[in-house]
Amino acid sequence: MQFLRKHIEKILPLTDEEFAFVATHFSTRKYKKHQYLVQEGDEVKHCYLVISGLLKLVYNDDNGKDHIVSFAMEDWWESDYYAFYTQSIATMSLQCIEDTEVYCFSFENYKKLCEEFPKIEHFFLQKTNFGFLAAQRRILSLLTSNAKERYEQLLKQYPSLLQRVPKSLLAAYLGVSRETLSRLV
Amino acid sequence: MQFLRKHIEKILPLTDEEFAFVATHFSTRKYKKHQYLVQEGDEVKHCYLVISGLLKLVYNDDNGKDHIVSFAMEDWWESDYYAFYTQSIATMSLQCIEDTEVYCFSFENYKKLCEEFPKIEHFFLQKTNFGFLAAQRRILSLLTSNAKERYEQLLKQYPSLLQRVPKSLLAAYLGVSRETLSRLV
Repeated sequence: MQFLRKHIEKILPLTDEEFAFVATHFSTRKYKKHQYLVQEGDEVKHCYLVISGLLKLVYNDDNGKDHIVSFAMEDWWESDYYAFYTQSIATMSLQCIEDTEVYCFSFENYKKLCEEFPKIEHFFLQKTNFGFLAAQRRILSLLTSNAKERYEQLLKQYPSLLQRVPKSLLAAYLGVSRETLSRLV
Repeated sequence: MQFLRKHIEKILPLTDEEFAFVATHFSTRKYKKHQYLVQEGDEVKHCYLVISGLLKLVYNDDNGKDHIVSFAMEDWWESDYYAFYTQSIATMSLQCIEDTEVYCFSFENYKKLCEEFPKIEHFFLQKTNFGFLAAQRRILSLLTSNAKERYEQLLKQYPSLLQRVPKSLLAAYLGVSRETLSRLV
């Protein structure tokens, strides 16, 4: 659980007793490449923090085309958040691009933890703020940049990610065809 | 301050004493149509909650073209959040589409309030979650839908907003030219 403690303490310092309590709300799981953590149409019971590996959050549109909403690598949180927070059915899927190990907690444990240890909401607020700002940056990028510029922004922001993501998935993230991407990079 | 109390208590019930304390961190301001709350290049000192009126958050790109990142009407929070949270220079502007009245607080008061009354972070966490989910929905809409579909989604989601927003601004939000929008609606 050292990874989890280090991750939380970047934002919120904890005593040994506090961390021991927080940790009881989490469990760890391992998934193989291609395995699903969340499948479209299923209940979304958990939220995940990536310890190692790489995930993709995918929306499959009415024409059967995949769009990658986000990637998640070490130290990133991911889920179909709308479905998680509203305890509704997943409209997206979360799948492994590499073998992946995660911490996860259930919605019940999330609520319980926030009620019993409200200080943790400071941590979640900072993480959610960060997620909101990243999403807003992505909106701006989609509104103002073409595919080549979006590729360059991604390369600058997350150079290590680009080395791990197959070109076909990168195209589905940038919103272009595999062929268009080949001409760009 | 009844509006503010009602707004917060939708998420977090407060005693009279608690609300009186929270309220000391806010002030109210009135702006005229076309007036700026935040201007690109300025320090972003405040975050705003709209009491009445309508705002647009605008990003002006390298070619001088305006892109509307979001609108904000009654009961919505808005700012150049990246600049607000990192206390850096605004890369976006926040401007009145209508005469607008807001509550606002400074970054110092935001930090002070969270430190002195940590319960308020539960409220901010819920609001930020909501903002994150709305931003994610917008990303999906930009990735998967054409301008006509995006217009219809907006009409379904915020019918009252569309009646108040001039067509030229709607085009800048949807990412199409004014002429393209005219053919759609």
